[in-house]
Amino acid sequence: MRIDVIGSVNEIIAEEAANKCVVVIDVLRATSTIVTALANGADGVVPVETVPQAKQWKQPGIWLGGERYGKKIAGFDAGNSPEEYTGPAVRGKKVVLTTSNGTRAFFKAHRASCILAGSFLNLSACAEAVKSIGRDTMIICAGGQDRFALEDGLCAGCLIERLHNMHGTHLQLNDFGKMLHYAARHTTTDLVKLIRECTGGQRLRQLGFDKDIACCARVDLYSVVPVLDHDHIIRPFSGTKVAS
Amino acid sequence: MRIDVIGSVNEIIAEEAANKCVVVIDVLRATSTIVTALANGADGVVPVETVPQAKQWKQPGIWLGGERYGKKIAGFDAGNSPEEYTGPAVRGKKVVLTTSNGTRAFFKAHRASCILAGSFLNLSACAEAVKSIGRDTMIICAGGQDRFALEDGLCAGCLIERLHNMHGTHLQLNDFGKMLHYAARHTTTDLVKLIRECTGGQRLRQLGFDKDIACCARVDLYSVVPVLDHDHIIRPFSGTKVAS
Repeated sequence: MRIDVIGSVNEIIAEEAANKCVVVIDVLRATSTIVTALANGADGVVPVETVPQAKQWKQPGIWLGGERYGKKIAGFDAGNSPEEYTGPAVRGKKVVLTTSNGTRAFFKAHRASCILAGSFLNLSACAEAVKSIGRDTMIICAGGQDRFALEDGLCAGCLIERLHNMHGTHLQLNDFGKMLHYAARHTTTDLVKLIRECTGGQRLRQLGFDKDIACCARVDLYSVVPVLDHDHIIRPFSGTKVAS
Repeated sequence: MRIDVIGSVNEIIAEEAANKCVVVIDVLRATSTIVTALANGADGVVPVETVPQAKQWKQPGIWLGGERYGKKIAGFDAGNSPEEYTGPAVRGKKVVLTTSNGTRAFFKAHRASCILAGSFLNLSACAEAVKSIGRDTMIICAGGQDRFALEDGLCAGCLIERLHNMHGTHLQLNDFGKMLHYAARHTTTDLVKLIRECTGGQRLRQLGFDKDIACCARVDLYSVVPVLDHDHIIRPFSGTKVAS
């Protein structure tokens, strides 16, 4: 299996994603939030690009979530903190989500065969899904403010390590993927500490979202793997919904 | 000291290099060749962008070097293998060099306060120069074919590790720099083996330049640090040529 890792949303070239399995990783916080919402029983997550598009969805049974500049948007039900997406809040509802960066990656990779959402929260489950799909894979580190984000790179490196350790999965990595794999494999520092010190972590702390960092660093808390369905709604991966 | 690392020539934003100390790293092979040429007594290296520009320089006392698609250019004195730039070949001559990627970085970073050439060959000397200059620094991993190259990233990570170990050098790294630092610090695999397996190494082997890999992986072979002078000629850094 070939795995290419991309360092930011801006580096996505649509043709290169064509027919691949794509994994979008935005640890702080879009994909952590999507995983949490589905794990807590939301009836799908609709990624949308703009705030006006999100507002058009407003009706009973819809949970509007998202952020701009890290903060909750006026009139929305929630911001982008995973812990806002509890069972009582989102169960049975459709979550409409717009974030500055993470949701964009789903649109830019639209030519992929399937698009999964990866995070530390569903790391092993995500690796299992990638293996079961069995296609050449592109991992997109969504990054922040158009730059590579350390927490996404570490998560990608850990995902590669999971795949590497799976019996029968022979990986061909691009140079960037190799680098992330080395780094993730050998980093012994506490994950929460690492994320608190990186650019995105510092920014969240400044905005008062320090507790989101520990929340997003819980490895394998959930077994759900979000996948973008053909109707552009993200639902749990069941292993049977991948385009051929 | 702040250090930002950039993953490929395409990611250079000229304004972000302004007034900084820039280190260009193109291990395979532009900066390894520039270091070797100066260490062997060349009277400066002139980086030029195009083959016609290089040919305009042709005259006695000029050594034309460079490559396109990895290979020597017709009519040139040498390709881009460091070992072609021996003392008998280049001593006292001006080397005019054009390469697909590495020399481009010198032009894109033109607003920098100073531009150094780094490689494994002059790693410690380069770290000493960066420290003595004492400015905020941008390390450019030149990469290959517009993509991040593992050998450049490892060299950048090793350069950061050298700086990190220097007494009194407190570093603030961007996320990408942190990632490279982790990877370089913990990679225990033999450097030549690593480079042979990365994209650029595989390409050089296919082109018949396998021996260049071991040549470019010799850590601290030379103490020369090439710096782009105000007349656009690269000469050994003497510690007194940095713009204020």
